[in-house]
Amino acid sequence: MSDDPTPQEVAEKAAEAMLAADAATRGLGMSVDAIGPGYAKLSMTVRDDMLNGHKTCHGGFLFALADSAFAFGCNAYNKVTVAQGCEIDYLRPGRLNDRLTAECREQALEGRSGVYDVRITNQDGATVALFRGKSRRIKGVIVPGLTPDAEE
Amino acid sequence: MSDDPTPQEVAEKAAEAMLAADAATRGLGMSVDAIGPGYAKLSMTVRDDMLNGHKTCHGGFLFALADSAFAFGCNAYNKVTVAQGCEIDYLRPGRLNDRLTAECREQALEGRSGVYDVRITNQDGATVALFRGKSRRIKGVIVPGLTPDAEE
Amino acid sequence: MSDDPTPQEVAEKAAEAMLAADAATRGLGMSVDAIGPGYAKLSMTVRDDMLNGHKTCHGGFLFALADSAFAFGCNAYNKVTVAQGCEIDYLRPGRLNDRLTAECREQALEGRSGVYDVRITNQDGATVALFRGKSRRIKGVIVPGLTPDAEE
Amino acid sequence: MSDDPTPQEVAEKAAEAMLAADAATRGLGMSVDAIGPGYAKLSMTVRDDMLNGHKTCHGGFLFALADSAFAFGCNAYNKVTVAQGCEIDYLRPGRLNDRLTAECREQALEGRSGVYDVRITNQDGATVALFRGKSRRIKGVIVPGLTPDAEE
Repeated sequence: MSDDPTPQEVAEKAAEAMLAADAATRGLGMSVDAIGPGYAKLSMTVRDDMLNGHKTCHGGFLFALADSAFAFGCNAYNKVTVAQGCEIDYLRPGRLNDRLTAECREQALEGRSGVYDVRITNQDGATVALFRGKSRRIKGVIVPGLTPDAEE
Repeated sequence: MSDDPTPQEVAEKAAEAMLAADAATRGLGMSVDAIGPGYAKLSMTVRDDMLNGHKTCHGGFLFALADSAFAFGCNAYNKVTVAQGCEIDYLRPGRLNDRLTAECREQALEGRSGVYDVRITNQDGATVALFRGKSRRIKGVIVPGLTPDAEE
Repeated sequence: MSDDPTPQEVAEKAAEAMLAADAATRGLGMSVDAIGPGYAKLSMTVRDDMLNGHKTCHGGFLFALADSAFAFGCNAYNKVTVAQGCEIDYLRPGRLNDRLTAECREQALEGRSGVYDVRITNQDGATVALFRGKSRRIKGVIVPGLTPDAEE
Repeated sequence: MSDDPTPQEVAEKAAEAMLAADAATRGLGMSVDAIGPGYAKLSMTVRDDMLNGHKTCHGGFLFALADSAFAFGCNAYNKVTVAQGCEIDYLRPGRLNDRLTAECREQALEGRSGVYDVRITNQDGATVALFRGKSRRIKGVIVPGLTPDAEE
């Protein structure tokens, strides 16, 4: 192919490669519903093995959904990017069989550091949790040959 | 038994009941290694279904381990307590087969609100992540009859 | 006046009363540039007494600007609302004489608990910091008689 | 002096130089009560120009106190270190004339990244706020000639 891929094509190919390599995201039954530069939307159904002692979705699985959306969003430039830290605030519980959607939007990207916000909503559109992730780009690319190798 | 249980006995019975009811914590293979008032130590082995595309432990599972330690620690008074929000900072990756330990310590408990810190270390004692959880006590008890019912 | 004030009028009157009572916000030279239900925009110039040893704006003053925007935003319903916790991420330094603007937007309001995001930008429109505040409504109103007293 | 300074001597000299250069910390009336490698204790009295509309200490000044303790603690190795992000949780209000003490302890230091916790207490020893700061070491030293120049 003689033409450089568009940012949208880069994001799609990076997401495809990431999902193929990511046993955790697949094992939790997540689907990647939309992807773009700095953007991702993933969804997941709350299974009974995700319930805690209060019979609501264990925070770890809400977090995992948001964290995957964050990872797909911040790696969508095909540059390997890792989480430095994250924060989650719970607004209402996730219940058994809820279909939860996590939408990640880039808030800032300054050099190698980025801030991404994820909102988790349920099938009624109500907000279940808000998540903020801080990313840092390291060496390497997700898909070799897709974009110029990172210079450092 | 005519005597009131000690705080340590309360913590142990609350933890036992929580674990029995918590499919998520059990399903992730966590063990409760120590418990006390405002304190919990849990451990978990990184399985291959917990790996992300970077072949390190998906942040959601690190978070889940810390979050469970937090839940066991802040519910150890037998008063139902939920997470309001949490924060995690990653120091080094978790690897396949790492045995991770999360130790939760109460930092503050003021009225119904608490702050708990969790440190995740690996089998070499190196810190993998630091977690801070903010809790809020709601109505109800974990084990009925174990402690006086919450007044509200 | 026989008519109930609009939400916008409530927000304006609450902000006016808050500013009059808030020595800290006035003393730091902040101006309230816009206000609305769950929304506030404040600005402040970086003075030399706000510089730290790195000759950039001390984080406390960036935080104070964001925190004031958050306070004006979450109290704009005329119901007394306090901060539970906040988080700030720094993207670029504030410099002497920079005119910094903090814009607060409500992200979620669920019962008494809210989440508000504030973005601080400089005079060039570059993002200096991102702030997330968690609020909790308590008893009381800002301006008596302006809105129905809170029920609790 | 022919001998290398001890880590404690380095911390003291770095703190002295930082305070001399830090108009913000001095202007807020903070005193540096103790210093050590990765450790600092600062105190400050709540003045009337620090009060918000609720007549409690504006969160920005609580944050500034914690942030200064964090800065002194993480720069005590004489390597220039900046804040990446911080989080604060409020437990009880600061009141006019309260003497607040902020004690910073290093939680982790991994390569250039560190995590520091600060507890703010009042004159009665009650916890007012808990703060967690994330640091990153950059190029340069605080006091030239005191320690080997950072290699990068």
